[in-house]
Amino acid sequence: MERPIGVFDSGVGGLTVCSQIRNYLPDEQIIYFGDTAHLPYGTKSKRQIVRFSSAAAKFLTNLGIKLLVVACNSSSAVALAALKQQVKLPIIGVIDSGAEEAVRATSNKHIGVIGTRATIESEAYQGRIARLDPEVSVVAKACPLFVPLVEEGRTSDEVMWLVAREYLEPIRDEGIDTLILGCTHYPLLKDIIARVMGKEVKLIDSAQAVAIQVKEILHRRKMFASPGRKRASKRGSSRGKAGMKFYVSDWPENFKELGKRFLGEEIRFVKEVRFDV
Amino acid sequence: MERPIGVFDSGVGGLTVCSQIRNYLPDEQIIYFGDTAHLPYGTKSKRQIVRFSSAAAKFLTNLGIKLLVVACNSSSAVALAALKQQVKLPIIGVIDSGAEEAVRATSNKHIGVIGTRATIESEAYQGRIARLDPEVSVVAKACPLFVPLVEEGRTSDEVMWLVAREYLEPIRDEGIDTLILGCTHYPLLKDIIARVMGKEVKLIDSAQAVAIQVKEILHRRKMFASPGRKRASKRGSSRGKAGMKFYVSDWPENFKELGKRFLGEEIRFVKEVRFDV
Repeated sequence: MERPIGVFDSGVGGLTVCSQIRNYLPDEQIIYFGDTAHLPYGTKSKRQIVRFSSAAAKFLTNLGIKLLVVACNSSSAVALAALKQQVKLPIIGVIDSGAEEAVRATSNKHIGVIGTRATIESEAYQGRIARLDPEVSVVAKACPLFVPLVEEGRTSDEVMWLVAREYLEPIRDEGIDTLILGCTHYPLLKDIIARVMGKEVKLIDSAQAVAIQVKEILHRRKMFASPGRKRASKRGSSRGKAGMKFYVSDWPENFKELGKRFLGEEIRFVKEVRFDV
Repeated sequence: MERPIGVFDSGVGGLTVCSQIRNYLPDEQIIYFGDTAHLPYGTKSKRQIVRFSSAAAKFLTNLGIKLLVVACNSSSAVALAALKQQVKLPIIGVIDSGAEEAVRATSNKHIGVIGTRATIESEAYQGRIARLDPEVSVVAKACPLFVPLVEEGRTSDEVMWLVAREYLEPIRDEGIDTLILGCTHYPLLKDIIARVMGKEVKLIDSAQAVAIQVKEILHRRKMFASPGRKRASKRGSSRGKAGMKFYVSDWPENFKELGKRFLGEEIRFVKEVRFDV
């Protein structure tokens, strides 16, 4: 129960998932691993993504986690089955969580999903939704410029608006009532996406969906960390939350700098680990 | 003399360099290595870039090349000195070639350079130009959205125009007469860059500058491949050019698909090699 939750992604994107887990589960310790030596996973082959993900999962399980969150869409899309074989712990991937939340949320059974080219072309969201409810129809759209725009901090400038309208207006016009933000970078674009899509469309933040699912699983398995422990370990924290530890496979300074916008708070210390796959 | 020229980059960008070498030296065999398992280099630490580059250089020298072209700006910026220690062959990096060509071309001694954030922040172009001619002043500008836009094939749409004007107009207004396209993706943007910069500004295509320098070195060292050999080996080629071989460390299908726009012709066969660094 007192063991940490392990979270991994190729870079900083998964920090939006950490941030949501912190909101929903402030007593839980989190260990985050960013495989920055191999980022981004989305441009790699399926075989490589499975290799990288498997090594990342091994790294985290060796640190004694109680639950593994795959906070990377590419990895969730192509490596989750392999990881479930390998890791004898509860595993949660961003895609399943987002898909389940969207199926619960839709009234007209018409869901949209946006993500990177790799995620959309993997058809992982589409497949998962079809298995959950075959009556739901899905409009999927790759939005490949969103990640570079977010990483440039251009979350609401003229270029972003132009790109957002181009990507999103055709999906909006299909009459969906629910849109999955199928990329860990997209929570930073929630405002602009909401404005293009209009109030009628519910946005499913997959980072938030994961956090809700983590909470459900810990509840079901009676695995919550005790609040007492939180207070004992919160030394130096002004937020009253349990600790987070960050590991990366390359360039910790850059992770610290880029990461704070995704986590929503300063990152104090990032440890670089040798990570030969 | 009959040995091939080796060229490497992290991905498809360096194919613009291959294409220029083919134009200037149609009799030369080329072996290209794309380290696609680790692309892009620009988001990795200096230490990792040196490791990857050193392994790529070793891979190519083991194949018996006569000259090594570092067709990656990040690698040229941070790893060239280490590679020169390691490899006992002539080595040409994109940065030196572009800088030398620009210093020759400028009349008013006012040069601009554009590239990725990693290249510009390394100050490699700025440093090289200062050593070549301390009187030249340099305006450098990172254009981080150009690579994703080129990779999306958006070389002249509305978004591209907006971004190009934003990046380039301030440099143009500084009164430069020469602009270095300091990224192997940028030759695909030559038209739009020329239109924003105006006719007065000479564009230095660093891919072309490398090819010119390769030709000079082969000439000086009397290392040209013999035209006779070209004819003997051109079996099946309708272009009358010597052969090219392509190796990648991941996902050959994707390289083939993306690469043709950069090379300017179809890529027939790409071999995947195991490349553990």
